[in-house]
Amino acid sequence: MATDKKQNLLYLFHRPQEPSFVPKGENAVAFDVPAKFLPERYKQLGTQLESRFGEATSQKISLVDIKEPNLTNIMRLGRHENFSLFLPKHQNIAAELINIFMAAKNVDELQSLGVYCRDRVNPYLFVYAFSVALLHRPDTQGVNPPNFAQTFPDKYFQSGIFAKAREETSVVPTGSRMPIEIPRDYSASDLDEEHRVAYWREDIGVNLHHWHWHLVYPTNAAMSIVNKDRRGELFYYMHNQLIARYNVERLCNKLKRVVKYSEFEKPIKEAYFPKLDSLVSSRTYPARVSNQVLQNLNRQQDEIVMDVAALERWRDRIFGAIHSGFVMDRDGKQIPLTENEGIDVLGNVLESTILSPNPDFYGNFHGMGHVFLSYIHDPDHRHLENFGVMGDFATTMRDPMFYRWHSYIDDIFLEYKATLPRYNVGQLNYTGITVDSVSMQGEGSKPNEINTFWQQSDVDLSRGMDFQPRGSVFVRLTHLQHQPYTYNITVNNASGSPKMGMCRIFLAPKFDERGNPWLFRDQKSMFIELDKFKVNLKAGKNTITRMSTQSSVTIPFERTFSDLDTNRPTGGDALAQFNFCNCGWPQHLLLPKGTPEGYVCQLFVMVSNYDLDKIDQDETGVCNDAASFCGLKDKKYPDRRSMGYPFDRMPRNGVDNLQQFLTPNMRVQDCIIRHNNRTIRRKN
Amino acid sequence: MATDKKQNLLYLFHRPQEPSFVPKGENAVAFDVPAKFLPERYKQLGTQLESRFGEATSQKISLVDIKEPNLTNIMRLGRHENFSLFLPKHQNIAAELINIFMAAKNVDELQSLGVYCRDRVNPYLFVYAFSVALLHRPDTQGVNPPNFAQTFPDKYFQSGIFAKAREETSVVPTGSRMPIEIPRDYSASDLDEEHRVAYWREDIGVNLHHWHWHLVYPTNAAMSIVNKDRRGELFYYMHNQLIARYNVERLCNKLKRVVKYSEFEKPIKEAYFPKLDSLVSSRTYPARVSNQVLQNLNRQQDEIVMDVAALERWRDRIFGAIHSGFVMDRDGKQIPLTENEGIDVLGNVLESTILSPNPDFYGNFHGMGHVFLSYIHDPDHRHLENFGVMGDFATTMRDPMFYRWHSYIDDIFLEYKATLPRYNVGQLNYTGITVDSVSMQGEGSKPNEINTFWQQSDVDLSRGMDFQPRGSVFVRLTHLQHQPYTYNITVNNASGSPKMGMCRIFLAPKFDERGNPWLFRDQKSMFIELDKFKVNLKAGKNTITRMSTQSSVTIPFERTFSDLDTNRPTGGDALAQFNFCNCGWPQHLLLPKGTPEGYVCQLFVMVSNYDLDKIDQDETGVCNDAASFCGLKDKKYPDRRSMGYPFDRMPRNGVDNLQQFLTPNMRVQDCIIRHNNRTIRRKN
Repeated sequence: MATDKKQNLLYLFHRPQEPSFVPKGENAVAFDVPAKFLPERYKQLGTQLESRFGEATSQKISLVDIKEPNLTNIMRLGRHENFSLFLPKHQNIAAELINIFMAAKNVDELQSLGVYCRDRVNPYLFVYAFSVALLHRPDTQGVNPPNFAQTFPDKYFQSGIFAKAREETSVVPTGSRMPIEIPRDYSASDLDEEHRVAYWREDIGVNLHHWHWHLVYPTNAAMSIVNKDRRGELFYYMHNQLIARYNVERLCNKLKRVVKYSEFEKPIKEAYFPKLDSLVSSRTYPARVSNQVLQNLNRQQDEIVMDVAALERWRDRIFGAIHSGFVMDRDGKQIPLTENEGIDVLGNVLESTILSPNPDFYGNFHGMGHVFLSYIHDPDHRHLENFGVMGDFATTMRDPMFYRWHSYIDDIFLEYKATLPRYNVGQLNYTGITVDSVSMQGEGSKPNEINTFWQQSDVDLSRGMDFQPRGSVFVRLTHLQHQPYTYNITVNNASGSPKMGMCRIFLAPKFDERGNPWLFRDQKSMFIELDKFKVNLKAGKNTITRMSTQSSVTIPFERTFSDLDTNRPTGGDALAQFNFCNCGWPQHLLLPKGTPEGYVCQLFVMVSNYDLDKIDQDETGVCNDAASFCGLKDKKYPDRRSMGYPFDRMPRNGVDNLQQFLTPNMRVQDCIIRHNNRTIRRKN
Repeated sequence: MATDKKQNLLYLFHRPQEPSFVPKGENAVAFDVPAKFLPERYKQLGTQLESRFGEATSQKISLVDIKEPNLTNIMRLGRHENFSLFLPKHQNIAAELINIFMAAKNVDELQSLGVYCRDRVNPYLFVYAFSVALLHRPDTQGVNPPNFAQTFPDKYFQSGIFAKAREETSVVPTGSRMPIEIPRDYSASDLDEEHRVAYWREDIGVNLHHWHWHLVYPTNAAMSIVNKDRRGELFYYMHNQLIARYNVERLCNKLKRVVKYSEFEKPIKEAYFPKLDSLVSSRTYPARVSNQVLQNLNRQQDEIVMDVAALERWRDRIFGAIHSGFVMDRDGKQIPLTENEGIDVLGNVLESTILSPNPDFYGNFHGMGHVFLSYIHDPDHRHLENFGVMGDFATTMRDPMFYRWHSYIDDIFLEYKATLPRYNVGQLNYTGITVDSVSMQGEGSKPNEINTFWQQSDVDLSRGMDFQPRGSVFVRLTHLQHQPYTYNITVNNASGSPKMGMCRIFLAPKFDERGNPWLFRDQKSMFIELDKFKVNLKAGKNTITRMSTQSSVTIPFERTFSDLDTNRPTGGDALAQFNFCNCGWPQHLLLPKGTPEGYVCQLFVMVSNYDLDKIDQDETGVCNDAASFCGLKDKKYPDRRSMGYPFDRMPRNGVDNLQQFLTPNMRVQDCIIRHNNRTIRRKN
């Protein structure tokens, strides 16, 4: 019963704009909201509301009395505005609301506070802050907030579907409703070159991953939440991998690698029209047309006055730190950028988080870059326009500029990495261990030839369709998919005794844009991590088999698409893991698209010395689907090596190509990714 | 009963996206739609729909069987697209649908055709085409389509209100609903200079007038509809007056007169973010950011491939016609631009309509200018974006570029007017008639000092809120208003016998932007027509009193704001007059805003010789509220003079200022328009 009561908190995520006294969910459960809890507008209507909704309510949840919290500051963000975790004003407001929820004495009080706040504050803000509170309160473990894309479908699905969904729910009885199909090309056409990879940028799994990553790794909250193991380094590595993956995807689509955005005075040729409408604000996410130029910001309402020159100053100081080998803290003290920990410091500086040793000096380069880009259409708010998709973690990966911006961020990290000592053979090799063969094979396919195709999957919108009739209404979207496959790896252990190794699997294109073989210094930035796992090696021949679905970078397909309400992770610490469990690259995009003629890649497998890799910690019961991208909750990052190892540094002298880089514990296999331009309906 | 049956046609305008079998209006009347009429999607659901909506229906309208029309071509415009009468493709589709409705044998057949088409074709298109048919069919006279702003509120009210209206209708019972207030400044702030006159550009009355004017004067339809008396000249004059009025409004707001848009290769500094969302397409009207440049169009879907150079060629040929005194018809024959009729020919050429004598040669300068500007953000459709507000008669007057574009159009007309013989004293004077004094006076105010202020009025949105609960929900908007006032004019008739005169009342600012008195050649373009009416002058002293509400350019306030369903014009020919009756400048904007310190204007009154003005026709029973702007339905324009007389030509030699221009039958009076920055709630 106690568990049931806690689960009632989840009703607060249903139809976030509908007041709490309106019956929720298929079971028509409503909160029994006392008059004093009602927002001003509804106070005067008390009995009328009772007669309007009383009958439709099948169950009422009663609320305990509470001292009404002071929401004056929090309500400076209006109910019908959009909400951005990039904006310091919004960050502060969110922190205040989180504190209110964290301070509740028990679940009953939390529930009352939730109802009181929910019908007053901005719905996006509420869902964010309430989710964070549920994640961090000891007494709400096991209460799993529903899929963000279902609560706010307007951040994930093109606006055009909502009129159709309204017609479907209003006219057609539940059960007979047809999914509303989103065409694969809805935001642009292939006349726009950048659109060729829109299927990837606008993928629901990609954007959910990014939202969850930043929920797990907030930049500004209590220190206990922010200060996670190697979080600065993970900021570098996860985004580094996003850029590598994006670049591979671009090559598959006959596009050149993304051009970093570093010349702030030059026009931005990439336009982007997101076709997203905020249902909360009834306002569109503004577009960016071609050839706009970054402008100084002076937006009173957002409390931002900042020149583009500030970005340039921060950037120059960060380069100064890289080239001098230390950052300067608030007291002018030098913090050396050491070989293994320097990247973590630099990540905190660049992102920047409250862990940055000197935000006054190094600023907020990454975050404000997003803000500048998100306001390029209305830098002084004269047009009363909101931020574009670049200003929202949930939407920013849709925009080609996300990648140009993060390519620059990555470039700065690589500039630093180039200053580090290069790995010598001893640091790469695993004496006595030889990888003899490597292959990847899909069911019923030739070895080393994997097929990709289009798949249609359905997502239920109804939880986010405020003020519409009840019952499911599905949207049908088309996304890339690959056939499941298996890695087969044979390893010889000539050491004469059992050994443990870390098997690291990467993939990179074999040729560059010109069709030429790569220089290693370029190809190393094209390697995308596919998997990483511990292997026990008996003496002699070992055969390792590993399935693509076991990948350490992805979450299972179902977790992206299913209603998480009914698919919650099991285990005693379920909720605590919730956001972790939903952080992770979508399995359906583990591989790049390939090409119809067969895209030639190099599959790289390395078995490293586990003694040098391992972290001593108990990892049982921890949600670790996507540890490579998201770490482990409340644990250390489960690999002692620098993230990206062995490709994170410049190669040793004499290594010009991948073959020269290899030590016996590494192996490369050519493989082909072939895209079949057909669409398959997913079986539910 | 026959009348009642006809009125059922009006249910087709209720909630244009909701299928015809869904009960309509407060009385829950639904069409009894036979299975074969149902769109494909609903055919399979027949009995389910019956059980879902049967109970809620209180009255069913049965339909006669018809041969199903072929909608293949018409449905090339998708149900969820936007519709533009500027686009030739859409014009042709509309014409085809109008023909279907016109060909119905009787009202019963029309009703069946209406239902059949309504649930299949684009809703905007349907409402337009069905309105035109009702207006022109003899058997549907007396059936008055409802206010367009209520059927499609998304074209008139900022998108932000619809989320609020959904909450209000879903949560609050009818009767307790509060109006949703639209702030006066919602599309921009005064940081944007152009925004100072946004209250005027975005006025609902202004935009409804413009929509109705173009409904009354379509450019492309059956010749009998298009070929109205002096329609080309009226195109010139009505838009000329719009520009004059806009310029006066700008001066009141410390803005310079609008700069014509004639240099197509230069960036357009005026940005505009309309904040309008199409509810039909769930898509926003795209914005124009600063400094965009006109681009060649290549939009396959709209069937438009055209270079900016085409605009320039047409423009140069039109100037060629002006400076050579003739246009060339399709056969190469010269049509002289005569003193009185030339302007009408030129109007047809410039607009252009099917009356243009040579569209292949002179093109479609005005219309394509709108199209080019409306697609400036996505000229080749690579971003799958729709047209901006410039592409829609219902919304174009919101955009500052409307005025820059029409200022250029006007300039071309004035270039032509400058070639005409100047009025000599004999053509201006009315021998024996002297205007002795002139004044305008508001109730309880000093003479020649009129107050303006802000007023709030409510408009019911519910008819356009598809898929929402029934019952009124109001939007409250703030618009300019002036106190009602009276003209007092004393005229001496020294001729010794009764005379008839045409009293022409104009107003212009007394000073230019610099605060200097005007040269007549400039001031003449600043005179806005306030009224024009016939007067009987007995011999000797005459006192003429005329109320501001009688103006020949305006329609009554109530007609802009009220539900036209319940306020239909009376009289035997009611519907035929419907669109005419709703064409007209909104009374609440008869006067410019003035300034807080008192804006000094010159009131100009002229009594001209009616013998030279009059048109012999029976005007009884004709809706003539705004004849100066809209003409009279099926009649001649009720003034034989050139439109704009006496200000439509360059002045005779020796006339440098207004005083020198005056003949005894004219009089000028300084007056003050004072703006009070307070807001008054309109009493319903």
